[in-house]
Amino acid sequence: MIVFLDGRLVAEEAARISPADRGFTLGDGLFETLRATAGTIHRLPAHLARLRHGAEVLGLPLPSLDWADALARTLAANGLTDAVLRLTVSRGAGPRGVLPPADPIPTVLIGAAPLPAPAPPARLIIATATRRNEHSPLCGIKSLNYLDNIIARQEAAQRGADDALLLNTAGRVAESTIANVFAVLDGALVTPPLAEGALPGVMRAAVLAEGAVERPLTPQDLERAQEIFLTSSLGIRSVAGLGGRTLEARFPTAQALRDRIGA
Amino acid sequence: MIVFLDGRLVAEEAARISPADRGFTLGDGLFETLRATAGTIHRLPAHLARLRHGAEVLGLPLPSLDWADALARTLAANGLTDAVLRLTVSRGAGPRGVLPPADPIPTVLIGAAPLPAPAPPARLIIATATRRNEHSPLCGIKSLNYLDNIIARQEAAQRGADDALLLNTAGRVAESTIANVFAVLDGALVTPPLAEGALPGVMRAAVLAEGAVERPLTPQDLERAQEIFLTSSLGIRSVAGLGGRTLEARFPTAQALRDRIGA
Repeated sequence: MIVFLDGRLVAEEAARISPADRGFTLGDGLFETLRATAGTIHRLPAHLARLRHGAEVLGLPLPSLDWADALARTLAANGLTDAVLRLTVSRGAGPRGVLPPADPIPTVLIGAAPLPAPAPPARLIIATATRRNEHSPLCGIKSLNYLDNIIARQEAAQRGADDALLLNTAGRVAESTIANVFAVLDGALVTPPLAEGALPGVMRAAVLAEGAVERPLTPQDLERAQEIFLTSSLGIRSVAGLGGRTLEARFPTAQALRDRIGA
Repeated sequence: MIVFLDGRLVAEEAARISPADRGFTLGDGLFETLRATAGTIHRLPAHLARLRHGAEVLGLPLPSLDWADALARTLAANGLTDAVLRLTVSRGAGPRGVLPPADPIPTVLIGAAPLPAPAPPARLIIATATRRNEHSPLCGIKSLNYLDNIIARQEAAQRGADDALLLNTAGRVAESTIANVFAVLDGALVTPPLAEGALPGVMRAAVLAEGAVERPLTPQDLERAQEIFLTSSLGIRSVAGLGGRTLEARFPTAQALRDRIGA
């Protein structure tokens, strides 16, 4: 794989992150996962807006960069047109200590991989090992601090599931480890508000624009939902099971959305 | 600086972390900060026990390594006897995705810097920007997910303070961004229990062994505390002010502890 690192395209084996990079030492940074088909990156302005918002929350000065060009060059260098791109921006190298340097030089890394085939409907569990902290501004940004999600994803694997839903500290549903969650409840399509600890997903926003509504969701709500699906930048994934429950193998709402918004 | 990286001593400028290292991409790892004086590392068994516990929580298989020897060699290579060492263990490189690889090859990095002079008594604030998540197992381990602490530390700097106390989601005191907190209240020396979201600090344990007690602490408790101090592996730091309050510039409990346990 060829990666874009600090302005240059270089073989991944030769690309060097400094051991003093605060992305490595403290998880001090942000990322975006983007989907490209036929050489076009989906919803790039929304991804860049979220990246900029995250940088503001962290006080991380984003470098001046033609992001679209950098992403396109990374795609081309890897000979890819249908791909998943990952854009990582860390605060760059810093001396010992938690307080960031006054004038950091952020690290910008872009990688690309072939677009995976659409995943089959997911079997979910509700994670018991950890909770999402809706009291932290980190919930509203896509940061490098992913350990709660990793722990929940490991629990899913141990319990034979594909992904896990994270509850917030109040015990309500926030999101999955890699996606937002929607449910059809009494004929309405609902998803947890951002204040519940949901990441402001780019695909989530696209589905909300189609008429879904924000409403707090409890695990009990999901027990009686007619349909559940997950959204991420890679698409809309139906949910075939949650804990002990198997959902009916018809997913009309998810399919209609896929057709309408090209997810 | 010479760093120890995956078994070799190498100049920091030449040391390479892979862009695929999950420490960099997801904050997937652990660290320890250790103090050395006269060439001796303080409380090494307690640090290694905490590292091992963290690795268990994360399902991260620690490499087989003579940790004491690796730390000693890093000290020697840098010509240091009085130093602060940082030992970082990440899960190493992995493919795209949150789920760790089945057989990760962890990255082990050790750096050393001259021991800083003892810090003067600290002026603290209580962070308003974020909260510590006492519902997450990450509170009990020293992980690379430090962004909540970074955000709180930035708030301290903006408000002219040296450090910030983090409250948990219930609004009680958990710790500072880099230290545990103790208070003298009605003649007792108290610190928040781990269940409140306090990191199990090595120096914290040493102070508890001297007769301090664990008790939940509210911001109101700290308003009336006779004395407050912070503990970290680098020592015991008295608190000279909290928010608008200035504490009396006599710190008898902290000084007595320093004398007794060599902090």
